[in-house]
Amino acid sequence: MSDVLQQLAQVLEQRKLQTADQSYVASLYAKGLDHILKKIGEEATETVIAAKDGDKDKIVYETADLWFHCMVMLAHQELGPEHVINELQRRFGLSGLQEKAQRDAS
Amino acid sequence: MSDVLQQLAQVLEQRKLQTADQSYVASLYAKGLDHILKKIGEEATETVIAAKDGDKDKIVYETADLWFHCMVMLAHQELGPEHVINELQRRFGLSGLQEKAQRDAS
Amino acid sequence: MSDVLQQLAQVLEQRKLQTADQSYVASLYAKGLDHILKKIGEEATETVIAAKDGDKDKIVYETADLWFHCMVMLAHQELGPEHVINELQRRFGLSGLQEKAQRDAS
Amino acid sequence: MSDVLQQLAQVLEQRKLQTADQSYVASLYAKGLDHILKKIGEEATETVIAAKDGDKDKIVYETADLWFHCMVMLAHQELGPEHVINELQRRFGLSGLQEKAQRDAS
Repeated sequence: MSDVLQQLAQVLEQRKLQTADQSYVASLYAKGLDHILKKIGEEATETVIAAKDGDKDKIVYETADLWFHCMVMLAHQELGPEHVINELQRRFGLSGLQEKAQRDAS
Repeated sequence: MSDVLQQLAQVLEQRKLQTADQSYVASLYAKGLDHILKKIGEEATETVIAAKDGDKDKIVYETADLWFHCMVMLAHQELGPEHVINELQRRFGLSGLQEKAQRDAS
Repeated sequence: MSDVLQQLAQVLEQRKLQTADQSYVASLYAKGLDHILKKIGEEATETVIAAKDGDKDKIVYETADLWFHCMVMLAHQELGPEHVINELQRRFGLSGLQEKAQRDAS
Repeated sequence: MSDVLQQLAQVLEQRKLQTADQSYVASLYAKGLDHILKKIGEEATETVIAAKDGDKDKIVYETADLWFHCMVMLAHQELGPEHVINELQRRFGLSGLQEKAQRDAS
């Protein structure tokens, strides 16, 4: 799954050059931070609902929606998923390399 | 970068073998799905608050908290970050390979 | 402000007799519980955003939106605001009578 | 019924004179707005979870928690439930008087 988040971050960056009618992401940027944050609250709730239903496809779909809108917020704030991933890596002492991870986690 | 998510998923899997007093993650599993979902709602709200403050360090920290608790929920439901990443890849027609991404996004 | 919530509960009850195109409330019932709950998550987030902005008119507006959608959820579940009010009354040992409240609270 | 909300608002006002160790409400004030808002996000999620479970006692309990923390936020912002009730009254053209409500709602 390597690099997909980074590629998506690049796509989100490029959407900043579009006008609101050219893509959903561009329309989110145009509506501004409060609207993006409202979507995060909405998608978090939909993730909770999906998990309560125990519907795996829906859980994946709604979590993807939630992470996606988080990434739009990060891009809007001139941040990227690498900052979040680095923070998780730091907290858990993860190497970013599969072999070391095996050791760390054991 | 997403190797880190995969490593973290392994750590979360291994925490299932622990008792609640051995780690925070094991205590989340022991408290059950509703408690994990409550944390998702709480961390989503903290992400919104951090973004309203425009505090970049706090935004990264709270988004990491949110994604982390989403990953605990995924692990609890026998899912992993790869399912979410695959869904994002599918939606945006991303290759998972850096070179192709450059072309796709352009 | 007495009885406004009870009157609103009556309005919400009557909306159950309408079809989805006749009112916003009837359309919420038609979309079902998950949609109503999604609105609660959304309006809670908007309340948080308004409070972070410190905009009093917006705080009142969004809190009204949140309580309203809670009342639609209660009506959908054959409950009413009186159950919530009774629970608050019980917790705080409130009398429901203004005079006694003055004494209780002092 | 809304007399209870007004009484509760008086209690919340009086808690402003206490120190954090004297009551839960005073501790919320001491922790500040962000903490109160985080509680609103948390309680909204718990309300959603309770409604998904269809557990009426839990729905009432969690909705009461949500409204209570909204009232703490309102008090912290020098607002009260009467502002929210007035907004609902205005939107729905409610009289605040039971008899007239019967007519309005019919």
